[in-house]
Amino acid sequence: MINVTFPDGATRQYEKGTTSLDIAKSISEGLARKVLAASVNGQVWDATRPINEDASLKLLTWNDNEGKSTFWHSSAHLMAEAVETMFPGVKFWVGPPVENGFYYDMDLGDRKVTEEDLAALEKKMNELAKQNNVYVRKEITKPEAIQYFHKKGDEYKLDLLGNLNDGEITFYTQGNFTDLCRGPHIPNTGFIKAIKLTNIAGAYWKGDEKNKMLTRVYGVSFPSQKELDEYLHLLEEAKKRDHRKLGKELGIFTMDDDVGPGLALWLPNGTIVIEELEKLAKETELAGEYKRVVTPHIAKESMYITSGHLPYYQDSMFPPMELEGQRYYLKAMNCPHHHKIFAAEPKSYKDLPFRLAEYGTCYRYEQSGELFGLMRVRCLHMNDAHIYCTKEQFYEEFKAVNEMYLKYFRIFGVDKYVMRLSLHDPAKLGKKYVDEPELWKETEELVRDVLIKTKTPYVEVQDEAAFYGPKIDVQIWSIIGREFTLATNQVDFAQGRSFKLQFTNQDNKAETPLIIHRAPLGTHERFIGFLLEHYAGKFPLWLAPVQVKLLPISDKFLDYAKTVSQKLKKADIRAEVDDRNEKIGKKIRDTELMKVPYMLVVGEKEMNENKVAVRRQGKGDLGVKSIDEFIEGAAEEIKERRSE
Amino acid sequence: MINVTFPDGATRQYEKGTTSLDIAKSISEGLARKVLAASVNGQVWDATRPINEDASLKLLTWNDNEGKSTFWHSSAHLMAEAVETMFPGVKFWVGPPVENGFYYDMDLGDRKVTEEDLAALEKKMNELAKQNNVYVRKEITKPEAIQYFHKKGDEYKLDLLGNLNDGEITFYTQGNFTDLCRGPHIPNTGFIKAIKLTNIAGAYWKGDEKNKMLTRVYGVSFPSQKELDEYLHLLEEAKKRDHRKLGKELGIFTMDDDVGPGLALWLPNGTIVIEELEKLAKETELAGEYKRVVTPHIAKESMYITSGHLPYYQDSMFPPMELEGQRYYLKAMNCPHHHKIFAAEPKSYKDLPFRLAEYGTCYRYEQSGELFGLMRVRCLHMNDAHIYCTKEQFYEEFKAVNEMYLKYFRIFGVDKYVMRLSLHDPAKLGKKYVDEPELWKETEELVRDVLIKTKTPYVEVQDEAAFYGPKIDVQIWSIIGREFTLATNQVDFAQGRSFKLQFTNQDNKAETPLIIHRAPLGTHERFIGFLLEHYAGKFPLWLAPVQVKLLPISDKFLDYAKTVSQKLKKADIRAEVDDRNEKIGKKIRDTELMKVPYMLVVGEKEMNENKVAVRRQGKGDLGVKSIDEFIEGAAEEIKERRSE
Repeated sequence: MINVTFPDGATRQYEKGTTSLDIAKSISEGLARKVLAASVNGQVWDATRPINEDASLKLLTWNDNEGKSTFWHSSAHLMAEAVETMFPGVKFWVGPPVENGFYYDMDLGDRKVTEEDLAALEKKMNELAKQNNVYVRKEITKPEAIQYFHKKGDEYKLDLLGNLNDGEITFYTQGNFTDLCRGPHIPNTGFIKAIKLTNIAGAYWKGDEKNKMLTRVYGVSFPSQKELDEYLHLLEEAKKRDHRKLGKELGIFTMDDDVGPGLALWLPNGTIVIEELEKLAKETELAGEYKRVVTPHIAKESMYITSGHLPYYQDSMFPPMELEGQRYYLKAMNCPHHHKIFAAEPKSYKDLPFRLAEYGTCYRYEQSGELFGLMRVRCLHMNDAHIYCTKEQFYEEFKAVNEMYLKYFRIFGVDKYVMRLSLHDPAKLGKKYVDEPELWKETEELVRDVLIKTKTPYVEVQDEAAFYGPKIDVQIWSIIGREFTLATNQVDFAQGRSFKLQFTNQDNKAETPLIIHRAPLGTHERFIGFLLEHYAGKFPLWLAPVQVKLLPISDKFLDYAKTVSQKLKKADIRAEVDDRNEKIGKKIRDTELMKVPYMLVVGEKEMNENKVAVRRQGKGDLGVKSIDEFIEGAAEEIKERRSE
Repeated sequence: MINVTFPDGATRQYEKGTTSLDIAKSISEGLARKVLAASVNGQVWDATRPINEDASLKLLTWNDNEGKSTFWHSSAHLMAEAVETMFPGVKFWVGPPVENGFYYDMDLGDRKVTEEDLAALEKKMNELAKQNNVYVRKEITKPEAIQYFHKKGDEYKLDLLGNLNDGEITFYTQGNFTDLCRGPHIPNTGFIKAIKLTNIAGAYWKGDEKNKMLTRVYGVSFPSQKELDEYLHLLEEAKKRDHRKLGKELGIFTMDDDVGPGLALWLPNGTIVIEELEKLAKETELAGEYKRVVTPHIAKESMYITSGHLPYYQDSMFPPMELEGQRYYLKAMNCPHHHKIFAAEPKSYKDLPFRLAEYGTCYRYEQSGELFGLMRVRCLHMNDAHIYCTKEQFYEEFKAVNEMYLKYFRIFGVDKYVMRLSLHDPAKLGKKYVDEPELWKETEELVRDVLIKTKTPYVEVQDEAAFYGPKIDVQIWSIIGREFTLATNQVDFAQGRSFKLQFTNQDNKAETPLIIHRAPLGTHERFIGFLLEHYAGKFPLWLAPVQVKLLPISDKFLDYAKTVSQKLKKADIRAEVDDRNEKIGKKIRDTELMKVPYMLVVGEKEMNENKVAVRRQGKGDLGVKSIDEFIEGAAEEIKERRSE
C-alpha cells in the first residue's frame, strides 16, 4: 500500500500501482469524468500512469491551467493523426499547447493547406475523437526510437532525438498515431468534444529564416460544444472591443513614428479619461491620508545602484544619457525618488504611516516585437504610492490598500478578480530572497490574514516573491472574460535599508520602516486599454469624454441647443452641439457610433417648453424632460460614478 | 545749425556743437538736472559731448538702463580716485558697471582691503563726489597713452592699450584721477549722492587662475539717499524672502545629490501649490475652450530634426539615449509633440482654432554653474499650450491669451509688468528670420494692436524675434520690486510648415495654420520661486498648503479640535490639528512661523458653544465664530482665490 496525500492535507491508502484516475473513481464517477491529468509530487503526470510510492496528489481538470494545457497538447496529437490520414508522408516537427489552444509544425512537401482542408481536418478529428482512443505511454530506448523514425522517414523527429538521452525517451500512441513525446496526456480522445482549427501560418524550422519554411496549423479545443461557442463569441467580441481600434475611433490615443514605438500620445478624449481616473485616485488617496508629491523623470546612476535597479533591472531600463561625466537614467519605477522624499526631512514614529502618492510617469524598455497597443508600452503613467510604516501598522495599512482595490473593482464593475500571493522559498533565503526568515513569515502571514479576513479571492504561489518581500499580482477579468494583470502590490523590507531610511521610534531609537508599494489602478495605459475592452468603448457617464450631445432637429434650433449646452457646461457636464446640416436620423446614428451616453434632441416643442428629448446610448428614447431635471439626474449619475 | 529729432518724432534746430545737456537745459532746468547721458544716433554718449551733425536724440536718465549703467560706470571711476588717494601706487585693471552697481579690479601689492577700509573709502568717495568734478573726455594718441601709463607704472592699463588702435583711444579725467576709458560718463561727480561699497572679493587677472589674484571691490550708488535706503531694504527683504530658504522651511521642495542638480523633488506642501496652480490653469483653459493632452517626455531624433531643435537648440538639450539603433531625446519643449497630435486626425477650418494644453514636463541642459534654486533648473513643468488658427482668427486668439495673462496678474497681485515685444529686422529676412515679409508685418502689427487696444504696458525691441515670428517676453516684478522673466509668448509661421500641418479651408484647399505658443504661468519652478518671494512664503488662503491649523489649548480639547478639523476637510479646507503637548503660546508662534493663514484656538468656551477663536497669520485675533460661519467665510475666500 502507498499513502496518498490530497491538497487539503488528508491522506488515504491505495494499492501500489494505482492510477490517479482510479483514485478519482474511488471518490466519484463524476469527478473521474473530469480528470485530465494529475500533479504527482509536484510533477504533471498522465492520470492513467501507475503510482508506485507515497505521493502528494492533485487531480487536474479543465479548471486548472495544467489540465487545460494537457488537453490542448493531446489535441495537437489528435490533429497530427488526422493530418497523417489526409496527407500521408507528412513529417512532424513540434506541436505544443499555447495560451489559447495548440499548434503543430509540419512539413507537407509541396502541398498547401487550404481553408477547406481545415474544415475536413476538423471533421476527421471529431471522428477520431469519438473513437475514445486511449493515449498510451511507452518508455523506449534511444536506438528503438531512432529506428522507428528512421523507418518512418521523419528527419525532424530524428533531429529531436539527437538531443535526448537514453532512459528519458517516451512515445505516446493514440489510434494509429505515435509521437515522440514527454507527455503527459489526457486519458483518451473522447474528452475532446469540440474542435476549431483557427489559422494556417508559415514558420521557419527552429525559427531560423535560413531553414525550410514549415506549415503551422493552429487550433483550439474544448470539453464541450458550449465552451467552444462561448470561446468563438469571446473572440468576436474581443475583436469588436479591440482597444486599438476603439482607441482610434474614439480619439483616445495615437502613436507616431517620429515619437517612437510604445510611446502613446494621449488625444483630447483620452486625456479626459486620464483626468477623471486621476481625480478618482486623488479623492480616494486624499481620504486615505496620502500626501501627493511630484518627482523628476530622471536620476543619476548612483541612485539606481543604491536601489538595485542597476544592474538587476537594467535590461528593462532605457539606456543612459551622459552629462558632465555623469550617467542619467529615465526612471523605470517611482520608488527611489519617493524614498528620497521620505529621507528629505527627519521622521519620527508620529509621522508614520507616511504615504506618498504620485501619478508617476515611468519609462521601461520592451523589445519592439513585444509592444502591443496600450498593453505593452514604453511610457507608463502609474497610479503609484509608497507607504512607509512600522511593523505594527502593517496589517491595517495593507488592509486599507486591499479595500481600495475592492472599491475600484466595484466602481468599474470588475466582478471577477483574484490576488496571486507570491511567497518566498525558505530554502533560498540569502540567495534569491533577503535573509530575514522572521520578517518573511510575519508579513506573509499578515498579508494572508488580510486576504482571508476580507474574503478576497486569492491563490498562493510558491517561490515567486520579489527579493525584498511577498508580492500580490492582481488579476482581473473584463466583462467578456479576458484576463488582465492589473497591478502589483509589494511588501518591501530591503529598500528601506539600502536607502538608509529611518524614523525615531518611541524608544528614541532609529528604526527602518517597512514599505508597501501599491498601484491599484495600474497604469493609465493598461487600465484604459482594459476599460476600452471592458466597456466596448461605452464609458459610463462620469468617464465619457463627451457626456451629452445636443442634436437640433434643424438649424432653427441651433441657438437653443447652444443655450442648453452652456447650461450643461456650467453644471460641469461635458456637452457638445452637433451643428452639422444633417438629418436628425444621421445625427443620432453618428452620435451612437461615438458612444456618447446622452443625446438630447431639440426641436420646436422642446424649445417652446424649455425641455429636451432624452435618448440614452444603446437604449433609445427616455422621454422629454425639463433642462433642470435632466441636469440634476446627470449630475448625480456623474457624482456617484454610476455604471449606468 | 543741425536738426535734432526726438523720440516722439519732433525735430528742433540747434547750433552745431551743442551738447545733449544744453538741449536738456533748453527744455527745462529740472530735466537737465536728471540727464546722465544721451543716446545720439543710437550710440550712448556723454551728455556733455558736442553734437556736430543732424542726430536723433534720446536723453537718458536714471529710469533708463543705459542711464543707470553710465552712472555706475562713473561711480567706479570715483571709487578708483578714492582708492588712489588712500593707497598710492595702486594699479588698476578694469572697472565696469554690473547688473546692480559696479566693481573695480585692482592690484594693491601686499595690502589687503578690510571692512574698515570700505567705510573710509565710502567717506572719501562722498567727499570727492561733493566737489562736483566734471568727467572730462579727451581723445589721445596711442603713443601718448602708452607714455602716460608707462610713467604711472600701471602694466595692466598698458596691457589693455596693446589691444587698442590709434584713433579709438580716449581718457576720462575727474578730479585728480585719469583713466583709459571708452566712456561714456555722467556730467559730473555731483550726481552721485549715495554710495555703498558692498563686497571685497579676489579675482584672477583675466579670469585665469594661473595669473595674479587681484582685489575686486563691489559697490552700488544712487542719485539720492532715499534710493540707496530702498535698495538696502530690498536686499534685506530679498534675503528674508529667498525662495531656497523658504522652500526648505515650508517643505516646498528639495534637491538631492543622487537625483541630480537642477532636478527639484516637490515635497507634499509644494505639490499642493502645484496642484492648485494646475487647477487654476485647467479651469481657465477649459473656459477658453482648450483641449488637454498628455504626451511622452521623449521622442526620436527625427522629430527634433523636423522641428529644428537639432542642431539649433541641441546645446540646451540633454544628450541622446541610443536604443535599437535610434537616438531618443528628452523633450526640451512640448510643441513638436503637440504638432503630432494636431496632425493625428484630419482638420478642417471648422476645427480651428484648435487649442492644445498640457502642463508638460521638459528637460533642458543648463550648466551646473548656472543652476540656481528653482530659478534655473533642468526639469521644468510648463503651463504650455499651442493654438492653431487661421490668420483671420489670430487677432482674437492673441487677445484672449493676453487677457489670460492679465487675469493671472490680478489673481497674484502682480501690479508691475511689461511685455517686451521682440520684432524682426527686415534686413535679415531669409537669414535670421523666415522670409515672409508680409506675414511679419501683419502679425507684428496685430500683436502691437492687441497690446495698444488692451492698454497693456509694452516696449518694442528690434531684431530679437524668434526665427519663426514675433515674440513677447513677459517681465513681472515681485512686490519688493525684483524683476522676473515669467514667460514667452510666440507667434509661429514656420513649424506648421516643417511639420506639414494643414487644414482644409472654406475653399476646400489645404492651408497651413498659424501657431501661437503660450505659457502664461511659465513653469512651476520659476513661478513658485517667484511666488515664494512675492508672498514671503505667506501664500493666500487658496494656495496655502495648510489652510487652517487647529490649536487646542490643552489635550482636553483635542477631540473637539479633531471634530472641527474633520468638518473643515469635508468642506475641502486643508486643516491640521496641533496635537503636541505644548503651551498655546508656543503653538501659535510655531504656526505663525509655518505661515498657516488661519489658526483656530479651541478651549473650554469654544467647545461648549461649538465655536472657534479665529486668528489670522500676521494679524492676530479676529474674534470667536461659529464653525459654520468660519467655514462659509473661508470657503468663499478660497473659491474666489482672494489675496487676503
